[in-house]
Amino acid sequence: MSKKPLSEDELTLINRYWRASNYLSVGQIYLLDNPLLRTSLQHDHVKPRLLGHWGTCPGLNLLYTHCNRVIRRDDLDMIFITGPGHGGPALVAQTYLEGTYSEFYPEITQDVDGLQKLFKQFSFPGGIPSHVAPEIPGSIHEGGELGYSLSHAFGAAFDNPDLIVTCVVGDGEAETGALATGWHGNKFLNPARDGCVLPVLHLNGYKIASPCFLARIPQRELTLLLQGYGYRPYFVEGDDPLDVHQQMAATLDQVLLEIKEIQYQARTDGMQKRPEWPMIVMRTPKGWTCPEKIDGQKYEGFWRSHQVPLKKIDTDDHLHILEHWMKSYRPEELFDQNGRLQEELANLAPVGSRRMGANPQANGGLLLEDLRLPDFRDYQIEVPEPGQVEDEATRRQGTFLRDVMQLNQSQKNFRVFSPDENNSNRWNAILEETDRCFMAEIEPYDTNLSHEGRLLETLSEHQCQGWLEGYLLTGRHGFFSCYEAFIHIIDSMFNQHAKWLDVANHIPWRQPVASLNYLLSSHVWR
Amino acid sequence: MSKKPLSEDELTLINRYWRASNYLSVGQIYLLDNPLLRTSLQHDHVKPRLLGHWGTCPGLNLLYTHCNRVIRRDDLDMIFITGPGHGGPALVAQTYLEGTYSEFYPEITQDVDGLQKLFKQFSFPGGIPSHVAPEIPGSIHEGGELGYSLSHAFGAAFDNPDLIVTCVVGDGEAETGALATGWHGNKFLNPARDGCVLPVLHLNGYKIASPCFLARIPQRELTLLLQGYGYRPYFVEGDDPLDVHQQMAATLDQVLLEIKEIQYQARTDGMQKRPEWPMIVMRTPKGWTCPEKIDGQKYEGFWRSHQVPLKKIDTDDHLHILEHWMKSYRPEELFDQNGRLQEELANLAPVGSRRMGANPQANGGLLLEDLRLPDFRDYQIEVPEPGQVEDEATRRQGTFLRDVMQLNQSQKNFRVFSPDENNSNRWNAILEETDRCFMAEIEPYDTNLSHEGRLLETLSEHQCQGWLEGYLLTGRHGFFSCYEAFIHIIDSMFNQHAKWLDVANHIPWRQPVASLNYLLSSHVWR
Ligand SMILES: Cc1ncc(C[n+]2csc(CCOP(=O)(O)OP(=O)(O)O)c2C)c(N)n1
Ligand SMILES: Cc1ncc(C[n+]2csc(CCOP(=O)(O)OP(=O)(O)O)c2C)c(N)n1
Repeated sequence: MSKKPLSEDELTLINRYWRASNYLSVGQIYLLDNPLLRTSLQHDHVKPRLLGHWGTCPGLNLLYTHCNRVIRRDDLDMIFITGPGHGGPALVAQTYLEGTYSEFYPEITQDVDGLQKLFKQFSFPGGIPSHVAPEIPGSIHEGGELGYSLSHAFGAAFDNPDLIVTCVVGDGEAETGALATGWHGNKFLNPARDGCVLPVLHLNGYKIASPCFLARIPQRELTLLLQGYGYRPYFVEGDDPLDVHQQMAATLDQVLLEIKEIQYQARTDGMQKRPEWPMIVMRTPKGWTCPEKIDGQKYEGFWRSHQVPLKKIDTDDHLHILEHWMKSYRPEELFDQNGRLQEELANLAPVGSRRMGANPQANGGLLLEDLRLPDFRDYQIEVPEPGQVEDEATRRQGTFLRDVMQLNQSQKNFRVFSPDENNSNRWNAILEETDRCFMAEIEPYDTNLSHEGRLLETLSEHQCQGWLEGYLLTGRHGFFSCYEAFIHIIDSMFNQHAKWLDVANHIPWRQPVASLNYLLSSHVWR
Repeated sequence: MSKKPLSEDELTLINRYWRASNYLSVGQIYLLDNPLLRTSLQHDHVKPRLLGHWGTCPGLNLLYTHCNRVIRRDDLDMIFITGPGHGGPALVAQTYLEGTYSEFYPEITQDVDGLQKLFKQFSFPGGIPSHVAPEIPGSIHEGGELGYSLSHAFGAAFDNPDLIVTCVVGDGEAETGALATGWHGNKFLNPARDGCVLPVLHLNGYKIASPCFLARIPQRELTLLLQGYGYRPYFVEGDDPLDVHQQMAATLDQVLLEIKEIQYQARTDGMQKRPEWPMIVMRTPKGWTCPEKIDGQKYEGFWRSHQVPLKKIDTDDHLHILEHWMKSYRPEELFDQNGRLQEELANLAPVGSRRMGANPQANGGLLLEDLRLPDFRDYQIEVPEPGQVEDEATRRQGTFLRDVMQLNQSQKNFRVFSPDENNSNRWNAILEETDRCFMAEIEPYDTNLSHEGRLLETLSEHQCQGWLEGYLLTGRHGFFSCYEAFIHIIDSMFNQHAKWLDVANHIPWRQPVASLNYLLSSHVWR
């Protein structure tokens, strides 16, 4: 693993691209006008109400920029899931820089005028939300309620053998229950038929107002934890951008090699054993590159940079600090006369649908193929005379689903999910057509268990829901069976998904995805 | 660590006690009558509708029996939390054997007649639930929705320096999100002022209908995971009861030594660093001691033993298997002429309130001391003229809570919980009186962070809710602040707690506990 894979030139370019994205992130949070600071910053250039989350942006920007490099070089099929989805400014910045944003929103042009609109619309009446949302190209993961990034990532990777899902996990997010079990998706992902999830634990140290414990346990302990989750962690750490760029480039190269190797092995020799998938721990300062201190208080590398670092922006003092901060990115070296990203930088992005903002996987409706369904009338129960026949509704439904499974085996776009309740919900017939998928050790006496199963059972309603959402949002079909008693566990996940669908329905370029289907059995209270 | 700490005599006695508890567990699931099988088993001795979960019982019984041994020997203050709370029969059996059950329910006498009633009432109309519920002495943890055992355990241990909370975690339960982050409670437990949680991961291999992944990853990987969670795992493994008894006895001895050592260190030299708390992994067969095979199919050590192994009990064949199975425990060696547990076995249980079924911690209302409250009128905002004063309701409330905190510092019975939102909910004033508690590394530049803080913040609504429930159910007071948007994450946990309270209110010997207080701020959807 070369320690410095980037030439001096590449390094400079990458760092400039990163600066550009950070500049655009700050700009969205603060500016109404004067986007390139070509005149001195005035109070009326600044938004009256400051919203948004800066702290997570520089890390997201760093990673996205580096993903661009390897996508372009290796022609990778990759999407990006932003666990800390409150970092909307970074994703808007990145998709703007790569060009997809202007393609979806032609009024946001690649010039000074477009930049001004881009900044102004952010978290502004009539504009766009401050969080990652359906409006942002390339996204399938709502910012808001934290914890579901890894489950969405695995759902997207299932049955997508060529896809790499890069999934940023916030160290705050990582404290949630859903995320803590989300790592175990690797016990259900088959490298021969599924794609790859590349988790990147973003150890920027803090959440809203205090440190995250994963950032404050010894590195050795964290390594054990991630190894215990079944991963091989690589650490990228530091606060010197040039050094971190080299580390990140080297690490991504290494990680991609291992992914290729794992997939090659599994696809040629057959799946022998569950691989130790690589992952990245990115330990960089929260709010990196913002003022180190403001009014004598620590901001860069501290929780205070979580949202808007400069709050008293109506004072000259803070206005000057903002100007100084934004100019530290040297926008004049990044954007040309017209306010367009300089060509040598624009060339760093992938092209066409390889750009993560344009990857059709993140607009799954584009890829959706109809589910092949048998005629439901064929499953009716003949009742020659009243009271003559005994049967169970859901057991019957199981035979229907078995046949749906069978009809769509070749399309590989239908899965069933359950928190260990498939059979108690009487869908046993499904197991005549497929197995439960299991990538941990299988014993000879196990029943209906294999690496190839299309029934996913794990005792986590969060995982079932998250996997299914990820699967649907990337253009496939699925069904979730659950006791009614326990479906409330994912009440709020469901709400967030419904909100996503609702908003997506009003976005012309988002194509409709398949419905999320539930069977809720039994009663809430015994 | 002695490999065989039990003398031959002790070993025989302990094994007989375990057999008795297993016998009573099976009896509850199947029998209406003829409880000691003193006449040959007839169809009308068996329940018409079979309910209950056998699979987890033998493991729970083993652990409970061994806890009794060390409680009695060392005069320990211990309670037992049953993660796989569907194993109600085991907990009923144990509390019956130790005598507490008959004290709370005098009609369930210590004789043949009482045994018959004990068996009959289980999951029977007008009887008791099949899950662990408020009706069972010694319990603070509802069986039902899985995943909250460790959070409850930590909540119970906070501010209870002498208490050991033995917490069984099912390997299925361990797949849930809440449980997966529940392990991290150790980053918030201070050995100097808090009690101890002793997690016992019950690796019986299966959930309802398939294997659990934690039981099917290499032992090395599981060890890394648990070490990564910050524990020192000890493995107790096998299917030969006598061997497992020795292992469990030796392991409990070792674990208790370490706990004492950790607490002694922290309480004499002061807390230097977060300890590596010991824990136990108990890898024993699911349904252990039931028929190995039934109708040619694997039951013992397999998922089929999860609920009721013999289902066609109206056939002579299964009836005979049941009789043979129950007789394999040799009830005549366990109960005397009158149907009372033999004295030498009864002597194995602790006495009085040291019995886990009688520990007042598990009936927290007994220990409840009133919260000292300042006069809320003192916190009114003077408004000399309309529109003259600006203030924030929750900021004001923070000053009230700060003073509540101050008034109850010496009682050590009030804590505040939040998923990283204390300050954004404007309760900043609390931090004038206490800190956030944090047991991972603290840096000199951290603010309001210490080992002694009484504000618990972690980015998990599940943990906040679970800790608070555990804290309240052991007789203390607390307040949970959360954005309204995210409180739905714990909808179903709340429901389960409310159900517990509702049922507990109708049980004469359960004393009322303090209310669970929420501040819900902001709006559901932005
Ligand atoms: C489930 C949930 N609880 C609480 C919040 C409120 N919240 C928003 S951001 C944040 C901190 C996130 O920290 P982290 O994941 O580390 O992201 P980063 O530090 O990179 O911004 C919290 C607690 C939330 N969004 N979701
Ligand atoms: C959250 C939740 N989802 C689903 C269930 C249904 N359920 C009841 S028992 C069980 C399996 C539990 O397995 P484990 O925790 O290993 O317990 P054991 O094997 O010891 O019985 C399941 C899935 C539940 N009780 N709670």
